[in-house]
Amino acid sequence: MRRRPITQASHHENLKQRFAATRQLTERLVSGLSDADATVQSMPDASPAKWHLAHSSWFFETFVLRDHLPDYRLFDDRLPFLFNSYYEAEGPRHARPQRGLLTRPSLAEILAFRRHVTEAVMENFAQLSERCSDLVMLGIQHEQQHQELLLTDLLHLFSLNPLGPAVWPGEITVSDLPPRNLEWIAGAEGEQVIGHQGADFAFDCEGPAHKVILVPHSLASRTVTNGEWQAFVEDGGYRTPQFWLADGWAWVQAQGISAPAYWRDDDHEGPLQFTLSGWQPRDANAPVCHISLYEADAYASWAAAQWPGIRLPTEAEWEVAAQRLSSVSGQFLDLDDVVSPQPAFHETGLSQMFGGTWEWTGSAYRPYPGFRAAEGAVGEYNGKFMSGQFVLRGGSCATPPGHVRASYRNFFYPHQRWQFTGLRLARDEA
Amino acid sequence: MRRRPITQASHHENLKQRFAATRQLTERLVSGLSDADATVQSMPDASPAKWHLAHSSWFFETFVLRDHLPDYRLFDDRLPFLFNSYYEAEGPRHARPQRGLLTRPSLAEILAFRRHVTEAVMENFAQLSERCSDLVMLGIQHEQQHQELLLTDLLHLFSLNPLGPAVWPGEITVSDLPPRNLEWIAGAEGEQVIGHQGADFAFDCEGPAHKVILVPHSLASRTVTNGEWQAFVEDGGYRTPQFWLADGWAWVQAQGISAPAYWRDDDHEGPLQFTLSGWQPRDANAPVCHISLYEADAYASWAAAQWPGIRLPTEAEWEVAAQRLSSVSGQFLDLDDVVSPQPAFHETGLSQMFGGTWEWTGSAYRPYPGFRAAEGAVGEYNGKFMSGQFVLRGGSCATPPGHVRASYRNFFYPHQRWQFTGLRLARDEA
Amino acid sequence: MRRRPITQASHHENLKQRFAATRQLTERLVSGLSDADATVQSMPDASPAKWHLAHSSWFFETFVLRDHLPDYRLFDDRLPFLFNSYYEAEGPRHARPQRGLLTRPSLAEILAFRRHVTEAVMENFAQLSERCSDLVMLGIQHEQQHQELLLTDLLHLFSLNPLGPAVWPGEITVSDLPPRNLEWIAGAEGEQVIGHQGADFAFDCEGPAHKVILVPHSLASRTVTNGEWQAFVEDGGYRTPQFWLADGWAWVQAQGISAPAYWRDDDHEGPLQFTLSGWQPRDANAPVCHISLYEADAYASWAAAQWPGIRLPTEAEWEVAAQRLSSVSGQFLDLDDVVSPQPAFHETGLSQMFGGTWEWTGSAYRPYPGFRAAEGAVGEYNGKFMSGQFVLRGGSCATPPGHVRASYRNFFYPHQRWQFTGLRLARDEA
Amino acid sequence: MRRRPITQASHHENLKQRFAATRQLTERLVSGLSDADATVQSMPDASPAKWHLAHSSWFFETFVLRDHLPDYRLFDDRLPFLFNSYYEAEGPRHARPQRGLLTRPSLAEILAFRRHVTEAVMENFAQLSERCSDLVMLGIQHEQQHQELLLTDLLHLFSLNPLGPAVWPGEITVSDLPPRNLEWIAGAEGEQVIGHQGADFAFDCEGPAHKVILVPHSLASRTVTNGEWQAFVEDGGYRTPQFWLADGWAWVQAQGISAPAYWRDDDHEGPLQFTLSGWQPRDANAPVCHISLYEADAYASWAAAQWPGIRLPTEAEWEVAAQRLSSVSGQFLDLDDVVSPQPAFHETGLSQMFGGTWEWTGSAYRPYPGFRAAEGAVGEYNGKFMSGQFVLRGGSCATPPGHVRASYRNFFYPHQRWQFTGLRLARDEA
Repeated sequence: MRRRPITQASHHENLKQRFAATRQLTERLVSGLSDADATVQSMPDASPAKWHLAHSSWFFETFVLRDHLPDYRLFDDRLPFLFNSYYEAEGPRHARPQRGLLTRPSLAEILAFRRHVTEAVMENFAQLSERCSDLVMLGIQHEQQHQELLLTDLLHLFSLNPLGPAVWPGEITVSDLPPRNLEWIAGAEGEQVIGHQGADFAFDCEGPAHKVILVPHSLASRTVTNGEWQAFVEDGGYRTPQFWLADGWAWVQAQGISAPAYWRDDDHEGPLQFTLSGWQPRDANAPVCHISLYEADAYASWAAAQWPGIRLPTEAEWEVAAQRLSSVSGQFLDLDDVVSPQPAFHETGLSQMFGGTWEWTGSAYRPYPGFRAAEGAVGEYNGKFMSGQFVLRGGSCATPPGHVRASYRNFFYPHQRWQFTGLRLARDEA
Repeated sequence: MRRRPITQASHHENLKQRFAATRQLTERLVSGLSDADATVQSMPDASPAKWHLAHSSWFFETFVLRDHLPDYRLFDDRLPFLFNSYYEAEGPRHARPQRGLLTRPSLAEILAFRRHVTEAVMENFAQLSERCSDLVMLGIQHEQQHQELLLTDLLHLFSLNPLGPAVWPGEITVSDLPPRNLEWIAGAEGEQVIGHQGADFAFDCEGPAHKVILVPHSLASRTVTNGEWQAFVEDGGYRTPQFWLADGWAWVQAQGISAPAYWRDDDHEGPLQFTLSGWQPRDANAPVCHISLYEADAYASWAAAQWPGIRLPTEAEWEVAAQRLSSVSGQFLDLDDVVSPQPAFHETGLSQMFGGTWEWTGSAYRPYPGFRAAEGAVGEYNGKFMSGQFVLRGGSCATPPGHVRASYRNFFYPHQRWQFTGLRLARDEA
Repeated sequence: MRRRPITQASHHENLKQRFAATRQLTERLVSGLSDADATVQSMPDASPAKWHLAHSSWFFETFVLRDHLPDYRLFDDRLPFLFNSYYEAEGPRHARPQRGLLTRPSLAEILAFRRHVTEAVMENFAQLSERCSDLVMLGIQHEQQHQELLLTDLLHLFSLNPLGPAVWPGEITVSDLPPRNLEWIAGAEGEQVIGHQGADFAFDCEGPAHKVILVPHSLASRTVTNGEWQAFVEDGGYRTPQFWLADGWAWVQAQGISAPAYWRDDDHEGPLQFTLSGWQPRDANAPVCHISLYEADAYASWAAAQWPGIRLPTEAEWEVAAQRLSSVSGQFLDLDDVVSPQPAFHETGLSQMFGGTWEWTGSAYRPYPGFRAAEGAVGEYNGKFMSGQFVLRGGSCATPPGHVRASYRNFFYPHQRWQFTGLRLARDEA
Repeated sequence: MRRRPITQASHHENLKQRFAATRQLTERLVSGLSDADATVQSMPDASPAKWHLAHSSWFFETFVLRDHLPDYRLFDDRLPFLFNSYYEAEGPRHARPQRGLLTRPSLAEILAFRRHVTEAVMENFAQLSERCSDLVMLGIQHEQQHQELLLTDLLHLFSLNPLGPAVWPGEITVSDLPPRNLEWIAGAEGEQVIGHQGADFAFDCEGPAHKVILVPHSLASRTVTNGEWQAFVEDGGYRTPQFWLADGWAWVQAQGISAPAYWRDDDHEGPLQFTLSGWQPRDANAPVCHISLYEADAYASWAAAQWPGIRLPTEAEWEVAAQRLSSVSGQFLDLDDVVSPQPAFHETGLSQMFGGTWEWTGSAYRPYPGFRAAEGAVGEYNGKFMSGQFVLRGGSCATPPGHVRASYRNFFYPHQRWQFTGLRLARDEA
């Protein structure tokens, strides 16, 4: 995504529009929700929609308005305690697993809080943009991340309701087109550079840019499909310990895992998947989704039992391949459609790299050489999560358009699968 | 409560009025709740208000309408799975700890379900009353029990909200009257009869009536007050293992218990308690409330260290004493007031026996001699809970008027204290 | 059991012999154990054999020698911390679940500690007997209780070893005699007296003697057999929630219970049970053993579904029936035999009341009217356990001879079943 | 460590001597243990000494004798079930947390099993060495790993005994020499090669050798000392969330961590540490030991708050620096001394790289590019543990001499600290 040089003024105007658009999109996401839908927390990993609405506003109120707008008065001084997520430097806060107990403030009150914050930022935009445009941009990017989390948390909540409700209407039509064949696309090898460069926004963990060495390898031209995953299931994939990491096998046994999350095989309706539009047909040609790193790794081991050298890509391999592609051209969040990854039919070369599903890589989420966290409370944003998690790349069908880029590093624990997570295979080449 | 002989017709009319009044009261209880307030479950022991609303209707729909009204069609055949509580004979059901995940059906939809059931019963009352008036009466009594649970579950939920919201307005005014002295009222001794007799409604566990032998004893003229409890706290009551049952001491240690539930001592506002009207002053003369059996027993042991022979009353001692008193004259649920037990000032003799707080007895909840559970699914109502729990007597300020009687047996586990539970001391007499 | 008046001197001599015999028996129980066998703790409910050996000596050293023998010096002042069980008044102590970590002191060292204590008591017996003969007797009774616990704890430990080791040799021979028919023996009714009377030793919880009222009932002439229990299993007893207390059903589901503890059905060897002599044939005519109260209650409910009125006996019914029988005539601990309850063949009337298996009653373990715990630290012996447990009566094949009597109250939680626990049915009579 | 070419015969002779010496050393380690000491399991992460003795023999019996010696008969066909650790391909096995329940077979019987296996291998050495010398070598290396684990597991067990027993005698004398200053030693930068090369033994996870790129950096000349760690403690290191990884902070809070494992500050004896020779003085100049990765990382963050750029070394940085050093010259397992890391006094340059304490690196334990697990059951040795763990380097004072090398990768979870784990700081250079 190259950009023309822009004037400072147009830069501020762009930022202001982006701020306004981001705030609006968040509110559109919850337009179909009841007060109750927005309040309940379905598991400790998830948060209520209302919490996402309030927390993303708390972020602007705290780090932008409070810290940079003289005389700003908090909307309600009881809210910071409730809606700080994990910023230790900001003091004590409401315990994460209890977020779902807050039936008050109501959704309407939270939306009023949002309006207050949005208006305060908009009315003082010139001043704020001058003083802390980087924090405004960080707040926008932060809110975009919470847009995706809001949707995946809702999906999890609704999936547990026997009535199978829908956040918005939609219908998946399974195509009868022949699926795209899987091809192996040679990757660059030897010394390469990864990590964010340039002046555009990126999170601290995406840098510094640095050299890496890639071994000879190729990447699958597309992600693994539901149909291919079905073959893994039918071949006993979930019952064969040799395919699994030891921690993964313990997880499979303890949780009784035998399929991706949100799969159901109905006697009458056939293979189904749960989506933000309720239960829908499961397309064998669509990317498999809602799998853990453990499952992704086991699938690769199963495939390697037949074709040695198959494995998950590293994050560096993925990034180098993605550097040549447009990061805005994939399937991103679209409120007019079912939020579910679509099949690849007509593409050539590497497809589905951006959007669709987040792709698990084989790389542990650790700092790049020379990494320094940002100063102050926002320095807690990324660095402190760098143990035990794995990197995912590329964004998903629930990621707002324009949010990701080749250097973007998402991360989750290896057992988590309530995000839109899939996989692409890689292969060692002699 | 003696009653004149009544004609069958007036009996049906009475029952119909009682049915209608009970259904209305339930709905009045939730008139101030938001959809979210009515949806969230604050702990596995508690249920959402919406669940209570639906479950008490499911009871009528299942055991009255479905079973006794030909051609009745269920309001929605997905609801029985959601709103059966524990009736194994009625088939599988939604797991109790997941009741709070049901953001749909909404509160409005549940209220529509209630109207449908209420109307179906009212329109067919003559027919139903003839065929199964006992089940209609059981449904009414059942709904009254859920009225109290609905309030205590809400109290628990709201107590966990740092904003301290109120279900309805109200204000406790602490009186400066001198408190009533504690007197010891001699109890009946020797052979006595307890257990329900007569044709009026009673739960199966209240019978059969049977003889018991009471030792010489007396009962305290009133329940223990907040002020007296404060002395126990200040004397190290919660830190002295010798006062406690072994299980109670383990509970105190594991949970870090140091005061009754809902107590808070505020630097500025002094001693407070959380009520359905939010945080309110804690009256030293009012009955202590929201204590567990373990706490009640430890208090009695502490008192016995000074005055040997002090202990909790048995349920038989309590019942025999209560047989002489009117069961409708105490402090019962009153929507025009704060729901919190009031001090005894002007009474003489045994006071506060009915209403105010449920009184823990030293009796384990076990069947009376000759007990037989009712036939069919409603036979699961009481009998299967007869292990590990203790009996409480007398009703509380959250019990709907007319619900309890001298033979009424309430029961909870010895660690539970989110109900309006207090204690009255007894004493062995030589 | 009436006794002739005895002189003080012969009383002391009797006590001394009893003390010596009890100490010796304990040591005989562990004569086949390795240091490792005596050290390991198989679950938090159980204790290592070494711990039982030391704790029963600590009891004498603390409450007899230290408190009543001037100039007595502790064997090792580090031991009281390790071997106090639960006497809060005696100060802090080693955590119960960590008892199995004490590989030192060794079994040999513990036996040396025992010898030291035994000799100190024996050498000063006259003096001690005069000053605290009641504590010496309590110590003897206490050690007898630990003899039984030592065996049941070993049984549990060895049952978890895939090698199925034996504490001592032995072989169960299944008789081909026809079993004894079950008869119903009418019980006394109306006003009766239970509770310990007289000057012989009894635990504090066995008194005071007091009147009770018994309803018309009868008791089964013998305990339920393995063969009868097999019919319960085959009739789906463990899969039918209607037979179970709610807590019991939750326990069955959570633990995956489908048979008594220590049952195994081997393809080659047929029905087996684990004993202190390893895996042995399971005799269909022998009493069922190692069942929980939940299972006993479910069995009675299953039987009541066919013959209404069947239930567990109350402890008062059991005691009144037992008052007429000799408490020393049953099957008690016998080191020359397999420790496993034997069938009733030739008896008439009420059989198997004493010895064989402890019999679950339907009575919660609560204080008798007028109960007062003993003074001082030994007052923690019984009273503080009076919540959540049920009473068992009669002793078992692992109870040392002479230990129990009609008024003896044993107690365990309703899910526990590693003791030699069985059941006898009772029946309401019109 | 280069080696002269050796003849096949001398290679076999060397291997045979090494086998015999390894087997002997293991038995020397347990010569002071009682049967009980060797049986108990102090936590699920640890195993009983007896289990280590048997498991390392099972490894030889299974993969060497059974698979490669025709007509070999198992010593006891019940043992494989008991002493397989985690090899799924070898069938079901005794659950890890229950290893401590096996009081039988006794220590003596396990030692007999060891002798049987040792003799069978020795008597058939020529034949086995020809057929599977790689498996014999793997078995030796495997047993060496269990030698260290056996000691750390014993240390943990004995640390929980209030008596503080010693595995063997020994005494730490705290020197009054001035400590060595910490210097920063420049590391190699740019393209380097890591990973095992050559024909000597290495575990599969140490290869393949591959290029890496190192940024400009330096390494501390020695490991962090107890005295330096004390400053971290006193500066509030364990109470300041900003220094900690989020998972680490949660661990500190949940476990109440405030110092390294095995530290105790005694009112009379001053700073102590628990060792295999019991409680000993804690030398301020000795390396800090028994810390988790979380603690190591927090310490580096604390140091970086003063001197930006300080961090943990990567495993590649460590290995490249170590390639120039002798891997046999450090403080390794020595039965004639207290097993506790010693201070660095007289060294120059990089010291303490091998032996002393394992050094946590900042590298997640993941496969090297092109990694392939070995074929067959031994392929489960390393690869399946490659999630969630971190790499440690260099060996410790409990590692048998000759076991480690520059490419050696040890790995543990970031919260684990019962191994001899310490840290060395690294620093980014401009």
